Amino acid sequence: MLVASTLKPNPVAAAPNSPVSPNRSLLIEGGMVVVMDDAGTVLDGGAVLIKGDRIAALLEPGAPRPAHVQVIDAAGHLVIPGLVNTHGHAAMSLLRGLADDLPLMTWLEEYIFPAEAALVAPDFVYWGTLLSSVEMLKSGTTTFADMYYFRDQMAQATIDAGIRAVSGPLVVGFPTPDFSTPEASLADAAVFMEHYQDHPTLVPSVSAHALYTTPLPAVEAAFRLAEAYDAVFQIHVLEDSSEDAAARELTGMGVVEALDSIGALRPGTVLAHSIYLSDEDMERIAAGGAGIAHNPQSNMKLGIPKAAPVTAALAAGIPVGLGTDGPASNNDLDLFDEMDAAARIQKFTLGDPTALPAEAVFRMATMGGARVLNLQDEIGSLEPGKRADIVLLDMERPGLTPLYRVYSHLVYAARGSDVDTVIVNGRVVVRDRQILTVDEEAVMERARSFGDSARKVVATVETAAHTSPIMNVP
Amino acid sequence: MLVASTLKPNPVAAAPNSPVSPNRSLLIEGGMVVVMDDAGTVLDGGAVLIKGDRIAALLEPGAPRPAHVQVIDAAGHLVIPGLVNTHGHAAMSLLRGLADDLPLMTWLEEYIFPAEAALVAPDFVYWGTLLSSVEMLKSGTTTFADMYYFRDQMAQATIDAGIRAVSGPLVVGFPTPDFSTPEASLADAAVFMEHYQDHPTLVPSVSAHALYTTPLPAVEAAFRLAEAYDAVFQIHVLEDSSEDAAARELTGMGVVEALDSIGALRPGTVLAHSIYLSDEDMERIAAGGAGIAHNPQSNMKLGIPKAAPVTAALAAGIPVGLGTDGPASNNDLDLFDEMDAAARIQKFTLGDPTALPAEAVFRMATMGGARVLNLQDEIGSLEPGKRADIVLLDMERPGLTPLYRVYSHLVYAARGSDVDTVIVNGRVVVRDRQILTVDEEAVMERARSFGDSARKVVATVETAAHTSPIMNVP
Repeated sequence: MLVASTLKPNPVAAAPNSPVSPNRSLLIEGGMVVVMDDAGTVLDGGAVLIKGDRIAALLEPGAPRPAHVQVIDAAGHLVIPGLVNTHGHAAMSLLRGLADDLPLMTWLEEYIFPAEAALVAPDFVYWGTLLSSVEMLKSGTTTFADMYYFRDQMAQATIDAGIRAVSGPLVVGFPTPDFSTPEASLADAAVFMEHYQDHPTLVPSVSAHALYTTPLPAVEAAFRLAEAYDAVFQIHVLEDSSEDAAARELTGMGVVEALDSIGALRPGTVLAHSIYLSDEDMERIAAGGAGIAHNPQSNMKLGIPKAAPVTAALAAGIPVGLGTDGPASNNDLDLFDEMDAAARIQKFTLGDPTALPAEAVFRMATMGGARVLNLQDEIGSLEPGKRADIVLLDMERPGLTPLYRVYSHLVYAARGSDVDTVIVNGRVVVRDRQILTVDEEAVMERARSFGDSARKVVATVETAAHTSPIMNVP
Repeated sequence: MLVASTLKPNPVAAAPNSPVSPNRSLLIEGGMVVVMDDAGTVLDGGAVLIKGDRIAALLEPGAPRPAHVQVIDAAGHLVIPGLVNTHGHAAMSLLRGLADDLPLMTWLEEYIFPAEAALVAPDFVYWGTLLSSVEMLKSGTTTFADMYYFRDQMAQATIDAGIRAVSGPLVVGFPTPDFSTPEASLADAAVFMEHYQDHPTLVPSVSAHALYTTPLPAVEAAFRLAEAYDAVFQIHVLEDSSEDAAARELTGMGVVEALDSIGALRPGTVLAHSIYLSDEDMERIAAGGAGIAHNPQSNMKLGIPKAAPVTAALAAGIPVGLGTDGPASNNDLDLFDEMDAAARIQKFTLGDPTALPAEAVFRMATMGGARVLNLQDEIGSLEPGKRADIVLLDMERPGLTPLYRVYSHLVYAARGSDVDTVIVNGRVVVRDRQILTVDEEAVMERARSFGDSARKVVATVETAAHTSPIMNVP
């Protein structure tokens, strides 16, 4: 059941995937360092000293630099904490764009479910997760929370890519490609939790899909497992306006109330979406300490006519992070794009240009996400002692020149394509916009081959509703 | 007054800016050609033959190719019509990010107006327009409509960059950096219109700012000038809910009614924003033939709580194009980003995931924009006889693999950074993501120097409202 027994060695690794030596030092020198501490420190011309997998020190401009260290020249760059994606289904990148602009049930029943039923297997999950991990790393995301099937392959793909992931067993109240029941999924889930307990980048987590799909006892069992390992617990909450009524029918309680009844609103519980929250729900969440994963682009694309009340949630002290949701319903994994959308949809729905200003959005995508994932002591800022998860953005571009305010450019003007260097856990995984951990071309080649298979499945259900025919790309 | 007398020769031209020889042939070979004709033709492995400044033929996959032509290999690429940006104020890129997240009047009165009063002069406009033109070209926009001051420098910058622009005299009912009155602005405006009458890329146009800033007789005089040259007429319309009341107070008519009263709702009139349209307004516009420039990202960022009713406008047969608005209120000029936002905000406000599907959005950014600018016979699709304004997107990227549906990827997953080759009027202006017409580094250097000046102006009005201090970038 363990990863080592179910997967061959990383078939596309471009370099040995060995841990960073604890004694190696690396200095990121000369950029504008956006620390994201409570004071909002920005060091123009500062430096970040990394030792092994952690940030050892921040050096002021002009302060003496240590000798005999490897140096990354960050002149002309912003140096920021790696972004944190708090919700998604990474392997679904293999189904991105298979169908869009459809009613949810048509999309699911005529496209996603048939394709998943025919295709989702260990290999699909490994390659889809790897593909998404590459896309995320190259666009500045260094940690993501994942919820999908085949936990071992999900985990291994993130390890091979060199990205930090919060990932693990999932329970759903219907048969999934990997397990026939929630009980079967949980039966040996502890093996996974044990195996990754001290892993440098794979943070084990337990997920339950949602209260409208999964019986409350199964949700509770999943939560208890997470609790036993002090691990993150992920669940979909109030993405649709019908969910409270469905939960009441099944449990006699609303969604948030039901989660509260089993003690699940504690820190480290990720409430994905949280759009239709009542005032009472908000109070329960604030009291319990759970966090919200806000996915504005997915929500808008699915035609959900309400924005998650994240301005109010932040005011109530609830941790809020950003998520992309799955790439099949977004359709990209660029958190810069998501920051921009998050700011705009709050301003739009509140009719207030001052709502959710740029610095608050950037905090949401870094420290906010870290708090949601209960990793606030490990990631989310460039403070000494934290893991070295660091991103460099090339600011010498026409669209980012001149630079007046760093947060404004980070949220409203920069995009993932401006990232040129990424460090995760002290290891350089992207340099000069190239991924160093895997052979990107080989990953895309496998993705294309899964695409060919998906096309065949969908051809049998294709309807006249599409004016845009599916392309048979060679 | 003519350009030649007010500007030195292009100081940063990297290559002679000569017209394309009418006999030169260029073949774009082997990509997936998205024609954007009425039938929605997509030629996988087709080719586009360019002769001089126009598209000579589309070649089916496998059809014989002409000999002795220069070939651009488009394998692994989408080949699309250049995108059309129907509204903006390009020179304001020099003020991008100077202030954000503020009430409109604070933003204008404490930041933009003081900075403009101190800085806007011929040089500012030339370099700001050039900077924006480079950003637009590199992100796949080949035509844009511009409204700002110092017409000669606006025009010259677009010509030096090699982008197609719809640009020219502007009237505003208050003193501007270039003219003290609307009458003064119009006094020799015909000289500009004459000078560019047959220019290959500069399409002369006349703008009036808005009915709430400019007396109706001055708006009418501007429109008559446009009419006399069969030129595009641009005006801001109903961006804010207060505009109809203001127009009634000044003219006794609502905004659209007032424009109708002077005959200005004809084809080639660009109604920028058009958010607060009544049913009667919509009928007047549909009957007159004017078009709408839709700027969803700017509108959302400014906290305008209503989306322009573009789904209804399209259903009424009104031409609708996309615009970025000025880079100081967006804050980028990437029309791919704008397409994505346009689709999502319609789905969100209508509560309908099927609203404004990807193909309709892409049409809006190409043929729709061409119709709004009355250039539908010249640009907006890859049909033979049209100007050769063509963009190649590199699709061999993790976030775009696999490719199932071209419009889905173009709208929801691709971004301007995926563009690697751009042709305007038959001339290759971007290749391998590098701008060929000007020295990009020199343009950015000048932009930074304007940034230093803007910082000094703003330092005198900086308020405690900002938690994010303005950075003194070296």
